[in-house]
Amino acid sequence: MGPSQSIHVAPSDHVILAVNGGSSSIKFAAFRDAPSWPKLLSGALTGIGEAEQRLSITSPNDTPPTVAAPEGAAGGAADQSSRRDRNDKIIQAPDSQAAIQLVLETLRRASLLGQIAVVGHRVVYGGPRLVQSQVVADDVLAELRRVQPLDPDHLPREIALIEMLHRQLAPVPQVAVFDTAFFQDLPRVARLLAIPRRLEAQGVHRYGFHGISYTFLMQRLAEVEPGAASGRVILAHLGAGASLAAIKHGCPLDTTMGFTPTAGIPMATRSGDMDPGVLVYLMRHERMTAEQINRLVNRQSGLLGVSETTGDMRQLLDWRATDERAAEAVDLFCYQVRKTIGAFSAVLGGLDTLVFSGGIGQHAPAVRAACCKDLRFLGLALDAGRNLRNEPIVSTDAAAVKVRVIATDEELVVAREAARVCA
Amino acid sequence: MGPSQSIHVAPSDHVILAVNGGSSSIKFAAFRDAPSWPKLLSGALTGIGEAEQRLSITSPNDTPPTVAAPEGAAGGAADQSSRRDRNDKIIQAPDSQAAIQLVLETLRRASLLGQIAVVGHRVVYGGPRLVQSQVVADDVLAELRRVQPLDPDHLPREIALIEMLHRQLAPVPQVAVFDTAFFQDLPRVARLLAIPRRLEAQGVHRYGFHGISYTFLMQRLAEVEPGAASGRVILAHLGAGASLAAIKHGCPLDTTMGFTPTAGIPMATRSGDMDPGVLVYLMRHERMTAEQINRLVNRQSGLLGVSETTGDMRQLLDWRATDERAAEAVDLFCYQVRKTIGAFSAVLGGLDTLVFSGGIGQHAPAVRAACCKDLRFLGLALDAGRNLRNEPIVSTDAAAVKVRVIATDEELVVAREAARVCA
Repeated sequence: MGPSQSIHVAPSDHVILAVNGGSSSIKFAAFRDAPSWPKLLSGALTGIGEAEQRLSITSPNDTPPTVAAPEGAAGGAADQSSRRDRNDKIIQAPDSQAAIQLVLETLRRASLLGQIAVVGHRVVYGGPRLVQSQVVADDVLAELRRVQPLDPDHLPREIALIEMLHRQLAPVPQVAVFDTAFFQDLPRVARLLAIPRRLEAQGVHRYGFHGISYTFLMQRLAEVEPGAASGRVILAHLGAGASLAAIKHGCPLDTTMGFTPTAGIPMATRSGDMDPGVLVYLMRHERMTAEQINRLVNRQSGLLGVSETTGDMRQLLDWRATDERAAEAVDLFCYQVRKTIGAFSAVLGGLDTLVFSGGIGQHAPAVRAACCKDLRFLGLALDAGRNLRNEPIVSTDAAAVKVRVIATDEELVVAREAARVCA
Repeated sequence: MGPSQSIHVAPSDHVILAVNGGSSSIKFAAFRDAPSWPKLLSGALTGIGEAEQRLSITSPNDTPPTVAAPEGAAGGAADQSSRRDRNDKIIQAPDSQAAIQLVLETLRRASLLGQIAVVGHRVVYGGPRLVQSQVVADDVLAELRRVQPLDPDHLPREIALIEMLHRQLAPVPQVAVFDTAFFQDLPRVARLLAIPRRLEAQGVHRYGFHGISYTFLMQRLAEVEPGAASGRVILAHLGAGASLAAIKHGCPLDTTMGFTPTAGIPMATRSGDMDPGVLVYLMRHERMTAEQINRLVNRQSGLLGVSETTGDMRQLLDWRATDERAAEAVDLFCYQVRKTIGAFSAVLGGLDTLVFSGGIGQHAPAVRAACCKDLRFLGLALDAGRNLRNEPIVSTDAAAVKVRVIATDEELVVAREAARVCA
């Protein structure tokens, strides 16, 4: 029956379950609500709705984590480069309902199911009114349903997940933790889009995503170097979904994702920001519908579109010596990250700290090196050896800008937020 | 019969006429083909297809030029801030045909019509094959017609203009000078869009526009400071259409406009780059068609969309003290220029020279100041007094980056190119 049979954890009265439901995956982690927040069990179920589903379970003794890259709405913390197959197994979970049953069964076998006190959900988007973490009461559920049309690609699935777990675990409270909350106080100039103002009143403005990951990264930065967290910081969360954020004095000033997680830099399969004239061309000449455009910019573009083979950065790095298309995809990704580091330095008035995170950010030295190329004028210089070893600090000692690599943990932030809300 | 009656110029055998046809305007200038390229007459006919048409003529004794801002495809060198009314007059030219007759009549009254040896046309876009300036022979005309679908908003009008002048002036050769030629050798990484590669084969990639203006600016920079022209340069052409370009060792490395002139930073009425998710939302929820999206992103967005009143920067600067929407529109424009200066500095590996041009760039000190805010880390510092007086150099003597203001002259580049091709 797989790795879950061998998992035994000490009983506890307060287990917090964090659930991170993406478009074809469910990532989950159980934590004990204790000062050090020990992780009791974590896992990922991927490939839901696709040909093959895969369950990866990590018990506390397994390190590094073997969690496969999920495909969250904003791309999650897709760990593209460290996936190992040891605890992976192919399972049957054709839909979300079956997947949730497998997650619960895994928790039951680990003797954790009965101890769950709170479930926290990463919710990508809550519309203009739902921003703060909160228990999903009836009125919250109604508001989530009301704003579904603003994000029909993610919200219906996330609402269904909350409802399923509510049915199975009531009266355990379900808490929604929004990926956009981190950016709720973005300055007007970053929030505004250059389109007719009436659309802002409908909720069309920059929200920003990956906020849960950015919350973790800023907390960790404050732990390891408190002064840095109050300086001029650029966070680069680079995974299947990828974005950057500019932070000054602890406040987010700008970010690349916008009204949707399609915006910003090119990603595994998403285009990032576009010349609107290209979309008008496709509508006029290829007669593309809204759904076709949506699929094109979210599923067929980015690294996959340019390489014509895959959106997986690890494979592209392997292939680029012999496949020019792979090399161009890698180059384009790194080039746009580099330009964004320059743009956000202009926003911040200079730079003190650059943090790489996400699967690519944590595990791809070649990408980090290319992203930092020619940035010596910013005071930025990588130490080649440190960078190659993915060390916590990859810049030279002499460089004015400290470049860090920090492994993100979105589930921990979700669990802590859920516990805080229910305290 | 208006100001043209008072214009008399010395006869010459070689007059070159430059024609710059925008979506609702025709800008023109006649030069003598002599080493110093004296401008004999220039003018602009604006408002074609709108309620009121206006003809502005500038004879060589009139300085500064009183040419009204035309609305070229890439926004032309729209001189928003220096328009004067002295030589403006309201005329009747409901369509391009009538407009061309008025232009020819103006030239005839100035005794220049019979001396025209070559006509040069600014053509915004020639598709992937037409890049170099060339005489519009039948095959060129056929190719322009073939690529019309790639740019149905500008090319049909420009083709019609060439045909009309050919009918009136044959055998005088008509020469097409392409606004995209300057960027023909963009590096792959700047040329590629993060969309499926098959679209590149159809001609969908970054072309870049305002290339005729950038040609002028680089030539002028080489005249006034030869070393600067071979350094790291950012050119900011800010008019009704607005873009920036990054130049190193005289070679363009990147630019903000893309497949179409809608891309890049927000402009008078254009959105610039967009979150594609916003367009998908508009298609899904407002059922917008290709034509409606096209109108939205080209005619209803940018400064006009955010301010809800006008796309004219001069008016917004006047109103911003009392109208928050005007203030936000100005702020957004300047903020995006500032971010682009940062991004392009990352492309160039630092910055030596920043050039402001175009109506806004040449005449709006407040905009230049806001675009350069917090950029001291780049070595950039404006001298407040010089900036307020629109001096040729507006940076401080101590600043590492020299910031210049250069009045562009697209017609001169078109005329010289046309003469060169026919020499």
